[in-house]
This record gives sequence, structure tokens and C-alpha cells, in this order.
Amino acid sequence: MNNHYILLADCKDEIGITSLISTTIKNTNSNIFHLDHYTDVQENENHLYLRIVFDQNDEVKGLLEKELNSRNIHFKIYDANTKVKTALLVSKEDHALSEIMLRANRQEFPIEISCVISNHENNRKFVEDMGIPFHHVEVTKDTKRQSEEEITEICEGYGVDLLVLAKYMQILSPEFVDRHHLKIINIHHSFLPSFIGANPYKQAYTRGVKLIGATSHYVTEDLDAGPIIEQDVVRVNHRYTAQDMKNTGRHVESEVLARAVRWHCEHKVIVNGNKTIVFS
Amino acid sequence: MNNHYILLADCKDEIGITSLISTTIKNTNSNIFHLDHYTDVQENENHLYLRIVFDQNDEVKGLLEKELNSRNIHFKIYDANTKVKTALLVSKEDHALSEIMLRANRQEFPIEISCVISNHENNRKFVEDMGIPFHHVEVTKDTKRQSEEEITEICEGYGVDLLVLAKYMQILSPEFVDRHHLKIINIHHSFLPSFIGANPYKQAYTRGVKLIGATSHYVTEDLDAGPIIEQDVVRVNHRYTAQDMKNTGRHVESEVLARAVRWHCEHKVIVNGNKTIVFS
Amino acid sequence: MNNHYILLADCKDEIGITSLISTTIKNTNSNIFHLDHYTDVQENENHLYLRIVFDQNDEVKGLLEKELNSRNIHFKIYDANTKVKTALLVSKEDHALSEIMLRANRQEFPIEISCVISNHENNRKFVEDMGIPFHHVEVTKDTKRQSEEEITEICEGYGVDLLVLAKYMQILSPEFVDRHHLKIINIHHSFLPSFIGANPYKQAYTRGVKLIGATSHYVTEDLDAGPIIEQDVVRVNHRYTAQDMKNTGRHVESEVLARAVRWHCEHKVIVNGNKTIVFS
Amino acid sequence: MNNHYILLADCKDEIGITSLISTTIKNTNSNIFHLDHYTDVQENENHLYLRIVFDQNDEVKGLLEKELNSRNIHFKIYDANTKVKTALLVSKEDHALSEIMLRANRQEFPIEISCVISNHENNRKFVEDMGIPFHHVEVTKDTKRQSEEEITEICEGYGVDLLVLAKYMQILSPEFVDRHHLKIINIHHSFLPSFIGANPYKQAYTRGVKLIGATSHYVTEDLDAGPIIEQDVVRVNHRYTAQDMKNTGRHVESEVLARAVRWHCEHKVIVNGNKTIVFS
Repeated sequence: MNNHYILLADCKDEIGITSLISTTIKNTNSNIFHLDHYTDVQENENHLYLRIVFDQNDEVKGLLEKELNSRNIHFKIYDANTKVKTALLVSKEDHALSEIMLRANRQEFPIEISCVISNHENNRKFVEDMGIPFHHVEVTKDTKRQSEEEITEICEGYGVDLLVLAKYMQILSPEFVDRHHLKIINIHHSFLPSFIGANPYKQAYTRGVKLIGATSHYVTEDLDAGPIIEQDVVRVNHRYTAQDMKNTGRHVESEVLARAVRWHCEHKVIVNGNKTIVFS
Repeated sequence: MNNHYILLADCKDEIGITSLISTTIKNTNSNIFHLDHYTDVQENENHLYLRIVFDQNDEVKGLLEKELNSRNIHFKIYDANTKVKTALLVSKEDHALSEIMLRANRQEFPIEISCVISNHENNRKFVEDMGIPFHHVEVTKDTKRQSEEEITEICEGYGVDLLVLAKYMQILSPEFVDRHHLKIINIHHSFLPSFIGANPYKQAYTRGVKLIGATSHYVTEDLDAGPIIEQDVVRVNHRYTAQDMKNTGRHVESEVLARAVRWHCEHKVIVNGNKTIVFS
Repeated sequence: MNNHYILLADCKDEIGITSLISTTIKNTNSNIFHLDHYTDVQENENHLYLRIVFDQNDEVKGLLEKELNSRNIHFKIYDANTKVKTALLVSKEDHALSEIMLRANRQEFPIEISCVISNHENNRKFVEDMGIPFHHVEVTKDTKRQSEEEITEICEGYGVDLLVLAKYMQILSPEFVDRHHLKIINIHHSFLPSFIGANPYKQAYTRGVKLIGATSHYVTEDLDAGPIIEQDVVRVNHRYTAQDMKNTGRHVESEVLARAVRWHCEHKVIVNGNKTIVFS
Repeated sequence: MNNHYILLADCKDEIGITSLISTTIKNTNSNIFHLDHYTDVQENENHLYLRIVFDQNDEVKGLLEKELNSRNIHFKIYDANTKVKTALLVSKEDHALSEIMLRANRQEFPIEISCVISNHENNRKFVEDMGIPFHHVEVTKDTKRQSEEEITEICEGYGVDLLVLAKYMQILSPEFVDRHHLKIINIHHSFLPSFIGANPYKQAYTRGVKLIGATSHYVTEDLDAGPIIEQDVVRVNHRYTAQDMKNTGRHVESEVLARAVRWHCEHKVIVNGNKTIVFS
């Protein structure tokens, strides 16, 4: 994927959009390596979503920007060589954190982990052993606003573009969520919309479900109601206690979060209202 | 599984229950072919659930009944050769109905389909071509009670032991449910407890979930809240319309219902409060 | 999908192909509804595969054919309204046959079942009850060539474009396979390349595998070695006899074959050497 | 699971075995917490496999040993409080190693990692940071026998009961395998018996399969042919290069190996010829 640009674009569907974009790219002698195209059929009008991967050259980005701006197309062009600078937020549990860090270490996705921020100290050693800065930001009822400002300052200090809540068990304020709009990815330990809120494994145990799941979503003001990026489940049975479900669900959480983070960093996700389009 | 008895038993957990039962069986020279044992750990006391498959002989059933009755153990002994007489209830959609009928026809589970009952006529030809009696029982708002009585009469006429709601889109009255206590299995077209109630695929589409599911459960007075026997899911993506989800979910519904019916008819399911133990 | 054309095209990858095609479509005032694009990276050169769904109008098909022919692009344009005429071949087992027939009946895929051909009589009643012509073509060692000619004649009589081997347990001659090149879809009852050849469930049982599977593929001269369209698996355990595996695997076979047939009939499959590209 | 014993037993199936064992346990006033029972139906005679979890007390182990020895029953009694001392062997790849180490760290299974042994140096830092001894044992063609002796010495030094090959890419000699009979668990990076031998992802890519998998098995003299403990698969498509398959398959490998190791350490696996019984 070296030396490619990635275009994410969306606009009211009209005849000729794909022709316009592909011809603009061709005219600079750039080749299209990959193209995803989705028409969302809606009541009044259709909406078009595009992701195009194409060769870099001196002209193509500027020319494309000029054409798309002149046509009122909403878009963003990413350099596929640039890794997404990311802060990981975590509380006590280590599984989602270590999964993301180890995959990043193996270069499984185009991410650069700038730092880890936690309201606990227990993960410091693991993080620092991996050579990543660890920031402890205490959170209490009274200091929430102040703690969130501290987190924002740390993130801005690193120039972070993505905040991943890798089992960060604090509810974020609407102001914080708004400030990092569609830049916060969370992992919820249930198959949403089942078992919203606290202690979903206990809820799942009580209801007697036969599968438990995890959901990764962008964080919005409504708790556990943001656009879902990825979900998965694992089978349980009557022998599972709530604690067994937690132990088993842990690995689904890690896997689901890792997939969501990967797709986000590969610029494969577009938010469409309260849903996501994932060109995976 | 020929010439076996199947014992389902449960009681307050005490030292020696398994010894008592297995020794009683041994003393009649019957061999245990299969034994499932589950201790439900509860706050005040533990509860024991057993399923034992053992050879038939002249003495074993009588002796076991005598011993278990004397010890206040809740139990039932089934003859593995006896198929469960079943009525299938269906509305317009044919998929779950045909799945159960074809599997029964291939003798995939120990079921005998006594009849099909429907509030529509469209499935009559398929059912009668398969050689199964078809009863049309119309249901309107005003005739609900009367229709349910008619259904009960038909079922009693056949000596039916199980009612399978194979996409029967009528809400049953508490009286009807009570009369056929834990003898009605339903298939709900969502991964419960997500999307309870009407039009779950539309709800799933609107929420933007990445997996859709189906849930088979015993019918109790609370709509969609009975003990879950089996669940499964299938992956969807942003390209799926609500109708696509319905088409895809259909096959999960059929599969999940068929598994639940099989386990019930193989006497592998014990209800434990609002949960099920499935010795699958 | 009404009133759409579907273009499947492939060619040596060059700058401007997507621009050429999308601009040709745009110039006739036809809108692109869907576009799939895959570049196969190979050692010496890349190869491009495209599937484009676009609005029908008087000009677009003719113009596109002219442009693509002038550029040495391999392609085919299908009318999305036209169902694929299909013959189902079956031996004794009914499950894959009934699955395809019932899904076709519910219009789950754009298929028209012209007839069923079998070397046994047992499925005649089911097929004829569904209103589909049933042809019995006996096969013996000595009459194989003659039987195959009879099958070809029947298929040609109906103008069939696809032959689906829905558990047809006869090995086809190279001549027959050649005559219906890439128009025969088979379901093999194992997760290929495991357990090629006879009695795969027995082989799976003996090896002690923990998952069993099914594979749908285009039939080529090499037995069980044609391009794979779809595969899936289901979990088993030490309690499964070879017969239990067969009973359980049956439903994976039906599901896998149905998916493969659907994608073929929706013109979503392109064969690339001994592999398939499935734009699902 | 504290203060329990776990009995694994197998013998020729006879009337009264379960009665004998459960009564012996009862007579010491020990309660059975869990019982798994499997009759393997074979041509000439049946074979019985049992796993029983029961309360510890002063008498029960001694009495049970006496009874079972007198009846020619093959058995072993484990203390559920005792963790299995384990050596992890690894080459360069870190994923399976870190998965097992992190799960052990979270106490997800009753394992004690005594040491890590590697023919490379790259994983030393991670291992030592976690506080586990790391031994580098070089392997060359000429020093194989000597290296294996060194490994055995290290393992014996720690009193290790299990060797886990967490992506250890050296073929072990029959002598070594024999010396650690049924005490070596391997992870093979394919869905066995598909793609035995070298570079299975390349083989899978070339064959065009739609699912890739991993298999965990006990190591025996026949390469990749030992008793399978666990397998799983993950979906791929035509867009996956052999390298993509490797990256994706990695996580299935880790998960499958972790499950196999857990079941082994929980004393849930019994080897039956070239198969396993897994009371999971």
C-alpha cells in the first residue's frame, strides 16, 4: 500500500460522479488500485459513498481537491504512508490494551501509539516496557472536568488523531465527546443494543443468553448508542457463571476493538448518520 | 439410541444422589450409556440436574421411580424409542415450517408431526403434499379466544405433546400459554433481548448492527421473555436493506428453531427458572 | 435491482480503464448503482476485474460493447431482470435439492429452475409437487456416455445456462465437463482440500477433526479441484459418529451450495485461473 | 474449583463402573461437583471415559486409588489447586507466546509458566519483562540432538509437565517426542489435514480457499498427524494475499492454542488412539 493516496468521499448521488473522479485521477497519469462504491438508497434521494486508493504523483492530490471542491462533494484525502497517531485510554483491565499494543508492534495496522493514559497505575510497567509513554490521570467525581482537560492536553501535546478507549471505564462528558467528535472509539462488552449500561455480563447471565458479544463504536453523547463499527459474539452455555462470561468475552472484546481500530486507521470507515459504512 | 430410557432429574444437591441413581440402575443389570451432570451453584444452596441414558429392561423403570419418589427428586423418564407428537403452527412464511418438516421426514430428530395449524391457507398444498393433515384456524381480534380453543382441541385430538410456533405471528393469550405450560417453542427473529416486539429486522437496520440473529425459546406469559433454548447470528453489512436482513435472517431462524426442537425432542433441555440447561 | 445491467469485465490493468467505462456509461445518461473493482497483483503484470451495475437505457449496452471490444477487454453484460435457467442434478439425498428449490420458490435468488434430473426415482414426488419437470436418467458403468448425452440433450432442450449438482453422486466425464465449461457447480461434502474423494465424513471421523465442512466449486476435469466459490464449517466433537457428522454436515452443504448458486446467478463470480473472485 | 480433585479414568465399558466410583466417593462424604461420561462405541466392545470433579477430604483419594487399581481401570487423580508447570518453546514469531503468557498472567487457566525456550533472541526482552526466565538454545542441523538434550535438561530442571510449542519452527526428533510422550502441544497454522507441512498459508492462497484455519494437537512421531485437541477457522476472500492470510491467521492460531492449553491444564482432555476426547 506504499505511495498511495486514499480518498474518502460522499455526496448526493448524481450521474457522472465516478466518471469525474476516475477521469481526474487518470488525467494525472495515476492508476486506481482499489475502488469501493456504495449507494445508500434513501426515501427522497440517494447518497453516494466512495473510497478510492490510487498512486501518488505530484499533481493528483491538488487537482482532485480542486475538482471535488467545485462540485460540493464532501471528501478527505489521506496519505497511506502516514500512520494514525493514537492515544490509548485504559482503566484496570489489560487485555484490550495489550492486544492493540502488540498488534501495533507487529505493524498489523497503520497506527502509531503516542501514549497510554490511565486512571490507574497497574498497567504502567507493561506499557513502559514496550517503550510507550504512560500518563496517569486520576479521575474522581469532583475532578472529572479537570481530568478530561488534562487528557485533552496530553492528546494535543502528541498531536493525536484518535482516542481508543481500551476498557476505559469512565463516562465521558458531552463536552469532551464533542471536542473529539468521531475521533473516539470505544469497546462495549455486550452485543449492543442488548445490555446497555453497567455490568452487561451479569445482565447476560441473568437473561440466560446462549451467545455473548462485544461492540466497538464511535462515542457520541448518548451512552452506548454511537455508530457501530464492528460486533462479534462467542458461544456460552448454562455452565458459564457471570465471571466465566467475563473471562470468555474478554477475547471477543479485544478482537472486535482491534478490527474496528484497524479499519478506522486504514480509512475504511465512513459514518452515515448513526450507522457506519465499513469498506472492509 | 434404541431401547434406552432417558431420565431427566433435578433436586437440591446432596452427597450421594449420583451414587443412588447409578447404583439403582446397576442393580437391575442395566448399563448407563450416557450421563450429564450439572450443579447449579446458587446463593443459599446448590441444585443438581441430571440426564442419564440407560438400557431398558423389565425392572429398571419401576425401581428407579420408586427410589426417586422416596427421595423427593423431581424427575421424568422417557422412552427413547417414542417420538414426540408435535403440532406445527405457522402463518404465511414457509421457511421454518418446511425446515422442520423436511428434517422430520429425514428422521433427523425423534419427532412425529401430527398436524400443521395455520391462520392462512397458503401453506396447505406443501403440507398436504407431504402427507400431513392441515388445519386452517382463522384468527381475528374478536375470535381469538375461540380460535385458541379450537387449536387446543385439535392438539388434544392428536394427543400432541409439543406445539412449535414456526413463524406463527399471533400473540397467544396467557390462558393458552398456561394450558400448554413449557410445551410451546417459539422462534423470534432477533438476537434477544435485542429488538423485542414487532419488526425486529427494521429495528436492526435502523440501529446499524453488524450481526443479526434469531432466538428460540419456550413461550411464557411475558412476550419474548421466556427461557432461551438456542440462539445464533449471521453477519450483515451496510449494504443490507431491512428486506435483505429478513431474507438472510430467515435461514438462521430455521436453523435455530430446528436445533431447539431437536434438543427438546431428544429430552436434552431442562428449564431452570427463566433459563435453560441444554445437555447438547 | 430492476432495470439494471450488470457488467463483468477483466483485462490487463492499465491507467484509465475505470475512467473509460464509467464515462461511457455516464455519456448515455445512465447512473452507476454499484461498482466492484479488484486488482490482482501478479508477478509480471496486474490484472483488473470489474463488476458494474448501472441503469438500462436504449444506448448504454451497445455503446459499452463497442468501446470494450475496441480495447481488447474481456467482458459480458447481463440483464439483471433475466433469471438464470438452471437444471438441478441429484441422486438420492434430498437436502441440497429441496433447499435450492424452496429458496428459488421464495425468489431469494434470480434463478429459474427448468428441470430436475436424477439417476434415482425417490425425489420425483417432491419435485413434481412443486410443479417442476423431473427427468430420470439411469446411469450404469456401461451407459455413462449415453446417459451424459441424454442429460445434455435435456439441458439444451430447456436452454439451460447452469447445471447444479445438488448431491449428484456420479463422476462426470471430461467430455461432459468440457461441454459445460464453468457452467457446472458442485457441492463437495468436506472442507476441501481436506478429504478429497469418497466418503469424506468417514475420513473426518477417523482423523478426529473438530470441525467439518462443505465446499462449493465449479467442476473441472480434476475431481474436487475446481475453483472454490464458497466454503463453510460446523463444529463437531468426540461424541459425533460418522453418521452424526453426515447429518450435521448436510445443512452446511445446503447452505454453502445455496450461497454459491446465488452469487453465480447474481453475476458476482469471476473465475481467475483456479480461484474465484466473489464480489459478494 | 478450589479444594477439588479431578479424576480422569477410562476402561472397558461394563455395568456398574459409574456406580462403583460415585459410591466410593460418597462413602467418604465427598460430594461430586461435576461428572462427564462418554461411551465410545467400537466394533468389538465399548470403552468408557470419565472425568469427575469432587470435594477433597482425607480419605477419598486413597480409597479411590485402591478401588480403581483393584478393577484394572486406567486413571489419574489431579489436585485442582495445582497449576501445570509449563515450558513455552518459540522461534521468532511472538503472537502465540504473548497470548499464552498474558492469559496465564490474568490467571485464565491453571498454568505456571516455568520458562521460555527459544532458538532466537528476539523475544527475550518481552519474556524477561514479564518476569519469566528465558533460555536461548541454538539449533543447527548438526546440533539438533544436542539442542534437544539441552531443552530436556532445562525442562527437567524446572520439573515441567507440559511443553507448548508456541510457534516453535523446528521439527522434533522421534526420540524427543517419545521422551515427552503426550506432553507436547503444538499449533499448526492450517486447518489440518489440509496443507500439511511447510508454508500452509502459501498453499491456502494457491488453492483459493475461502476459510483459513489453525489446529492444535499433541505432537507424535508423524509430523502434523497427532491427536487434534482444537481447531478453528476465519473467513478470507480473493483480496487476501498469502501475507494477509498469515496476518489474519495469526490470531486464530493464538486463540486455538490457548483453548487447547487451557483444556489440557484443566485436565479435560483424554487421548483416545489418534483422537481426543475433550470434556469442554
